[in-house]
Amino acid sequence: MLGRGEALSRQEAQRTLKEAFSFPEPPVEEVETFASLGRVLGREVTSPEDLPSFARSTMDGYALRARDTYGASESMAAYLTLTGEVPMGKAAEVSVGEMAAVRIATGGMLPDGADAVVMLEHTALMDAGMIEVVRPVAPGENVIQIGEDVRQGRPVLPRGHRIRPQDVGLLCGLGITRVPVYRRPTVSVIPTGNEIVAPGQTPLPGQVRDINSFHLAALVEQTGSCPIRYGVVPDDEERLKEAVRRAVAESNLVILSGGSSVGTRDLTEKVLTSLGRRGILFHGVAVKPGKPTLCALVEGRPVFGLPGHPAAVVIGYDLFVRPVLKSLSGEQSPPWIERAERTVTAALTRSVASRPGREDYLRVALEMKGEELLARPILGKSGLISTLVGAVGTVVIPEQKPGLEKGEQVVVRLFSP
Amino acid sequence: MLGRGEALSRQEAQRTLKEAFSFPEPPVEEVETFASLGRVLGREVTSPEDLPSFARSTMDGYALRARDTYGASESMAAYLTLTGEVPMGKAAEVSVGEMAAVRIATGGMLPDGADAVVMLEHTALMDAGMIEVVRPVAPGENVIQIGEDVRQGRPVLPRGHRIRPQDVGLLCGLGITRVPVYRRPTVSVIPTGNEIVAPGQTPLPGQVRDINSFHLAALVEQTGSCPIRYGVVPDDEERLKEAVRRAVAESNLVILSGGSSVGTRDLTEKVLTSLGRRGILFHGVAVKPGKPTLCALVEGRPVFGLPGHPAAVVIGYDLFVRPVLKSLSGEQSPPWIERAERTVTAALTRSVASRPGREDYLRVALEMKGEELLARPILGKSGLISTLVGAVGTVVIPEQKPGLEKGEQVVVRLFSP
Repeated sequence: MLGRGEALSRQEAQRTLKEAFSFPEPPVEEVETFASLGRVLGREVTSPEDLPSFARSTMDGYALRARDTYGASESMAAYLTLTGEVPMGKAAEVSVGEMAAVRIATGGMLPDGADAVVMLEHTALMDAGMIEVVRPVAPGENVIQIGEDVRQGRPVLPRGHRIRPQDVGLLCGLGITRVPVYRRPTVSVIPTGNEIVAPGQTPLPGQVRDINSFHLAALVEQTGSCPIRYGVVPDDEERLKEAVRRAVAESNLVILSGGSSVGTRDLTEKVLTSLGRRGILFHGVAVKPGKPTLCALVEGRPVFGLPGHPAAVVIGYDLFVRPVLKSLSGEQSPPWIERAERTVTAALTRSVASRPGREDYLRVALEMKGEELLARPILGKSGLISTLVGAVGTVVIPEQKPGLEKGEQVVVRLFSP
Repeated sequence: MLGRGEALSRQEAQRTLKEAFSFPEPPVEEVETFASLGRVLGREVTSPEDLPSFARSTMDGYALRARDTYGASESMAAYLTLTGEVPMGKAAEVSVGEMAAVRIATGGMLPDGADAVVMLEHTALMDAGMIEVVRPVAPGENVIQIGEDVRQGRPVLPRGHRIRPQDVGLLCGLGITRVPVYRRPTVSVIPTGNEIVAPGQTPLPGQVRDINSFHLAALVEQTGSCPIRYGVVPDDEERLKEAVRRAVAESNLVILSGGSSVGTRDLTEKVLTSLGRRGILFHGVAVKPGKPTLCALVEGRPVFGLPGHPAAVVIGYDLFVRPVLKSLSGEQSPPWIERAERTVTAALTRSVASRPGREDYLRVALEMKGEELLARPILGKSGLISTLVGAVGTVVIPEQKPGLEKGEQVVVRLFSP
């Protein structure tokens, strides 16, 4: 363990986390497909059958043999005999012979003998049961072939995939009414500190209501995991030990939402050192806010101690807890996800100075100025929850950089799942 | 109403929707704050009290009178008498006199007489109850004043705001344990068409399983509303009428998830014309896929008929249903939200042609090539659900444009809430 004051760089801390934990595959449970939105697939899903199971028309028109339309044009139409109609939702019982056509609607089953569909718009209905076709079609035109959407036995969704609305549609279309998903990770959130009281209580002088454990539980919920919120644990070694032991036994990850005092921090460190065989992985990271972030390994479970300042909570959560939680969820998200869904580029509205030797996480609000997106720094103390409520994300000032310039294009990392 | 074939432009259709509906304020209900994540605030929240309710230290150090440190430096320290300590979570009972200092931890209550805190790092503890201070502090330094985070009576969150994790934290910190939120809109989704069967059934020849109503219900859920899924309604005028009447009575918005056949479409139009006083607002929009999208007004409720092709479903939902649903939810989201959270810029991997006179919605997948984000067009038939499962969003080719060039930077609109 590192001594006080020796802060790891953010990159070192993240590497330490990656190397310290093994992430066993989460247990798999089955849920109804219609209730599976947002869950992570526990196994690859392959198709039990061909979709569609019969050739279907993609247009309203006439099923026919493509070759009977070759050369057809406005000036020299092809004339075919109308020999029937395909009823929707039924087998096409009529079969299509030479120079014959059968009325078909979008989604109808292509009848035997036909190999294409001509669109209604390129035909005219004559009397005496004939149709006029003024445009040729190629074999297979306006038809979805058997298995063209999904072929039997083909993988359709990979293990580790987070289920989206269109996936629910596909699974239902294949007749898969239950899906194997990973059990959601459970996360214990333990508020600590002699000065912290529950939101329902009236704080006495010197006391403040619990903000952080509720903020953290909501972050955990937003990430798709299940928070378990503990009551406030005062700065008492035995009680804290007992709470951590219970939390480690009943959840996959534990967050101690710190009281802000040095006493709470010392106690947390002491308790985690005594409980963990490997003990504390790091205590102190060169980021601001969030420097006193602590991580330990207790009974193989990751236990985080997050500092008391509200802004430090969200930075610590985002940089360290969230990636671990993602691994615990079994999700294998594609590499573009973070870039596409969690970041946006905007122009900074003012210059901001930074001290070298640490990463500075600037909270920002977003604004539109005409078509331009602007990032406005929120320069309050990190102990104020109001500065976080005004913000929608952060901009990082790298360790070596002395600051950012007004008008500079910066990457904003959004506070979002 | 417009006749068949006369398609509105997308802009006209959206304008028609805006003008046709009045969106009454949704009913307000109270929920526990810890369970309010993602809900929309039904009233402005103002602060019932000052936060914090006492001046707090933001550092571990010593509370003192700033003026007693003026001029202090490494070479000429100030020496103050240590007269006590502020216990965490208790009132600071000691008061700070001239040339005196009191030990205080981060979050501790500033004692009477003190107006600043000097950081521990800028002091040294001498024997004989003295401390040495080597850096001056200004009045108010390292202190959060009463009400500095939130002032009593000040608005903290506006009506129409969707509650985020940090908002849950703030509300708890202010002792607000229940919040007024708008009731979630309910959306009836009615699958129609003779060829559609439930996912649990084995389709007979000519039949296919319901994909669209499950896809739509999941989209509605993702948007934060409550879907009510109906059983499949066959192409029967009386039964469809009855289903729409029931749906309009029990929900805020109705979606008919169309069978694909012309018969279903004609029937839907007929039923909605007969039920609505104003009847059909539009039927046909110049977008591809999604042209046969239909919207009607029945008993003041918006009723949408979405085409049967899976890709048309998501375009129709995104362009027309989603904005109406957002208005029904009471959410007032800031103008940058769509831009920052739902779009990303990427380079197109190949050229794509488009027919003028309509907006083309190209489905795309995203990929990373080193640091560059690429959008790869997925060029399958819009009747295939698999093309939608491969896609993560759409790129619009405007009406006047003949296509997009390979390498062109395009704006991808993500399929996300």
